[in-house]
Amino acid sequence: MLKGFSVPLTPQGESALAGSPPWHYSSDCIAIEYWTDPDAVAALLPPGLAPDEGSQGRAFFWFLDWQFTGSNDELTDPARYQYREAFVLVEAVHGGQPVNYCPYIFVDNDAAMARGWAQGYPKKLGSVFQTRSFSAPSPAAAPLSVGSRFGASLAAHGERLATARLQLKETVADPRTVFNRPTTMRRYFPQLAADRQGLPAVDELTLSLTDDLRIVDVWAGSAELRIPEVQGEDMHRLAPRRVGRGYRFGMAYSVTDLRILNDDARRR
Amino acid sequence: MLKGFSVPLTPQGESALAGSPPWHYSSDCIAIEYWTDPDAVAALLPPGLAPDEGSQGRAFFWFLDWQFTGSNDELTDPARYQYREAFVLVEAVHGGQPVNYCPYIFVDNDAAMARGWAQGYPKKLGSVFQTRSFSAPSPAAAPLSVGSRFGASLAAHGERLATARLQLKETVADPRTVFNRPTTMRRYFPQLAADRQGLPAVDELTLSLTDDLRIVDVWAGSAELRIPEVQGEDMHRLAPRRVGRGYRFGMAYSVTDLRILNDDARRR
Amino acid sequence: MLKGFSVPLTPQGESALAGSPPWHYSSDCIAIEYWTDPDAVAALLPPGLAPDEGSQGRAFFWFLDWQFTGSNDELTDPARYQYREAFVLVEAVHGGQPVNYCPYIFVDNDAAMARGWAQGYPKKLGSVFQTRSFSAPSPAAAPLSVGSRFGASLAAHGERLATARLQLKETVADPRTVFNRPTTMRRYFPQLAADRQGLPAVDELTLSLTDDLRIVDVWAGSAELRIPEVQGEDMHRLAPRRVGRGYRFGMAYSVTDLRILNDDARRR
Amino acid sequence: MLKGFSVPLTPQGESALAGSPPWHYSSDCIAIEYWTDPDAVAALLPPGLAPDEGSQGRAFFWFLDWQFTGSNDELTDPARYQYREAFVLVEAVHGGQPVNYCPYIFVDNDAAMARGWAQGYPKKLGSVFQTRSFSAPSPAAAPLSVGSRFGASLAAHGERLATARLQLKETVADPRTVFNRPTTMRRYFPQLAADRQGLPAVDELTLSLTDDLRIVDVWAGSAELRIPEVQGEDMHRLAPRRVGRGYRFGMAYSVTDLRILNDDARRR
Repeated sequence: MLKGFSVPLTPQGESALAGSPPWHYSSDCIAIEYWTDPDAVAALLPPGLAPDEGSQGRAFFWFLDWQFTGSNDELTDPARYQYREAFVLVEAVHGGQPVNYCPYIFVDNDAAMARGWAQGYPKKLGSVFQTRSFSAPSPAAAPLSVGSRFGASLAAHGERLATARLQLKETVADPRTVFNRPTTMRRYFPQLAADRQGLPAVDELTLSLTDDLRIVDVWAGSAELRIPEVQGEDMHRLAPRRVGRGYRFGMAYSVTDLRILNDDARRR
Repeated sequence: MLKGFSVPLTPQGESALAGSPPWHYSSDCIAIEYWTDPDAVAALLPPGLAPDEGSQGRAFFWFLDWQFTGSNDELTDPARYQYREAFVLVEAVHGGQPVNYCPYIFVDNDAAMARGWAQGYPKKLGSVFQTRSFSAPSPAAAPLSVGSRFGASLAAHGERLATARLQLKETVADPRTVFNRPTTMRRYFPQLAADRQGLPAVDELTLSLTDDLRIVDVWAGSAELRIPEVQGEDMHRLAPRRVGRGYRFGMAYSVTDLRILNDDARRR
Repeated sequence: MLKGFSVPLTPQGESALAGSPPWHYSSDCIAIEYWTDPDAVAALLPPGLAPDEGSQGRAFFWFLDWQFTGSNDELTDPARYQYREAFVLVEAVHGGQPVNYCPYIFVDNDAAMARGWAQGYPKKLGSVFQTRSFSAPSPAAAPLSVGSRFGASLAAHGERLATARLQLKETVADPRTVFNRPTTMRRYFPQLAADRQGLPAVDELTLSLTDDLRIVDVWAGSAELRIPEVQGEDMHRLAPRRVGRGYRFGMAYSVTDLRILNDDARRR
Repeated sequence: MLKGFSVPLTPQGESALAGSPPWHYSSDCIAIEYWTDPDAVAALLPPGLAPDEGSQGRAFFWFLDWQFTGSNDELTDPARYQYREAFVLVEAVHGGQPVNYCPYIFVDNDAAMARGWAQGYPKKLGSVFQTRSFSAPSPAAAPLSVGSRFGASLAAHGERLATARLQLKETVADPRTVFNRPTTMRRYFPQLAADRQGLPAVDELTLSLTDDLRIVDVWAGSAELRIPEVQGEDMHRLAPRRVGRGYRFGMAYSVTDLRILNDDARRR
């Protein structure tokens, strides 16, 4: 009997990149609101999603320092289960409802990649950093207080893909005024057999389900964001035309389930 | 129209981890023949494969320095497309035919991971090194000649998973005397929807198809291999009981297709 | 006019690994008290230090997540200036005064290596991780509270050099009851000219000077520590015979100066 | 008795980043000839070197895949001793003699950094890649033959610092027609004691001594080179105004000694 939520499957189940849910996460987050070319957003949407005409290209660029645990104290093995992530969320409409959609996402950990692919996040490897807040007072501490400055960056294969800056101005009492759309993804697994290469084995529009979502210590302030053009990457087509506010906060949730939005598409 | 063999799919198709085949590969390889616990091999085999009773636990541990290219001169972007790999091949039988099966494989590159998952290789991230042969004469050159010594290693998340040593003794005229079994894999993609977590979306036994296979400059010699026990990994259950010969050679092939061996299983 | 505290010196001074002090630091720390072979400690001490007979091999193994800044908002460039570190401090005596001495230290950042070498820390590259405390409540958050569990690890070149575990039990009101010895180092820079290879250009016993030292949020609890034997490293000779308590805390200080303890040795 | 050419010094001498010479090296190299701003070159020269008026800003940008060994079969531990490097050599004059000078150099290995600093190479950490030539024929093999294309890149902290392309055209019979200047460096180690921060402990002009130098399999061809402006690095001031030929070759030598050119400066 072979065990594992993901490959590799083994009799003991220790080697699997991902074990069975629940998956628990807590993170520090920097998210930058911005507006990009609405046509570039529309061109990235998968079947089932339509452009959000009211959004005018609104998007968020996120940087996250994550800690993961399953049911076996994985958080005490940080070399394996702590990781960093960066992604873009663009605004769209599904069945009349406003949603976010994730076209680009980068992590520095293979377990995160395996769990993400199972959800529909198109994860690639990247190197992600964000300024952290430390408790011991110092010019290096970046406390959560008015005027504190934060930076964040994403690189892959030695190319800088995004750089952000944020200066804290004020707390945000209710994070739902900022983060209020559910997130959709495209769960996709191709076929390599020569006669089926145009027919993915899995191609589903999915909706992220987050149990026990907590967003805490939300600060807002002025922000900068750059997404430079890099050979071999298309993300710069979502570069900012205008940058809004930046946010810094803590976020936690658990994952035990996934909603398939176009269930009829599951068995083409 | 979104493009890409793998995610992420984009209008331009530059961001996809993997573009459409053909995929061309050339490598330097170190492979160590060894015998492990036959029961440990049997316990890892997926449905459709049976233990090879004559093998008595025979396996090969491989280390590879790869260069990849598609159709767009990817080999001139080595930061993105050059990579290193290590894997185990165990011997088994499929429909009466002797085959190899790959239960564990590690790479240091996300494009290689995406292509591998599409084939059925259960790739995880690792750090892989092998001694190289350089053309400029020096005590550091490790030439392909009698007495040259090579080392190789695999690590993941800061744990050493395998270490090998090899000393060249003689050339091998016909590599088919050593490498003569086709390789099978388990192509597997799970479901996360709560009511289907035990039902993988894709679960196929596959056969690797390699066009224009070339194996050159084959040397054999004495070898050592260690696969230590590491927390969070099951591979040590395939640790060597006895080590055979080691091989050092060049190998190239192209991939354009994949054979699904249990096609009826494709749509459970 | 070329600028830079360290190499490379340039007209603009941007490229230097280290700029001129002050250097400001804030960190999260895990430190494990333990006892090792007193003879192994004595054998590592440089000229000018004597074994502390009362210590019976007492040492601390530290893991640190650091944020650095100089005078130019370096903390907003975390890809360059955030780093992780692990080191051993052994107890010794200098001129009758109890001190710590640092024989082994690892970081994952070249600027930290350059500043460290200038102080006398014998830094090598390593991969360091520690469980972090996140503010958003979750099984993954590891809060600073009774029963929370933390892990930490150090690896170099794909070998695990140290692994620690800590479970919080209680706060420590006065950190000076635990951390009360100044730290000494050996500042050392060799010569390569053939006739002087046994005569280092710099060989000084130094004392770390930390301005504005702050140690906050100190928790203590039960601990585990392993320092396995690894080929090519001598640190395992300081492996624990007995492990004491573990500590988790925040620490900050600034560096502007260094004391040379054996000033007569500075110009051999 | 503590052992080691470099820190850390230990009774056994295994932990030292660098053991005593001889140090043996063999490599694959890509070097791009180019011309930059002569004033930018002049501004980087240390005391003792003068601009080479005839050079008009001539420089070479090198990428190297290195294998190192000392006297203990270090080449069989490639995870520790194989490394990659990139550097610039600018042309200058010392005492009337034409020389090269190395203002910028990057490696991905700490032992290489320690040996380099002892010689005067101002090494920082970087991520370096070059297309390799493999023996097994394939579109991915990049053989040493007319028309083969190579790429190379240097990145640090997630920023691309240099990108090169090369297409082979012809062999070069005598490499001395291309590589014929000795290389000088600035060996430099600062002081941190507050009253001596402007007075380096070591500040020497040095000359690289290479025993048993071998340059083999030299090919020349057309080349491209880009050195983009990156925040926190000054190297872009040596960006190319014009690019000459590119070279691909093997190189080996051993290091046992170093010449100090301004010996009077050694004991300021």
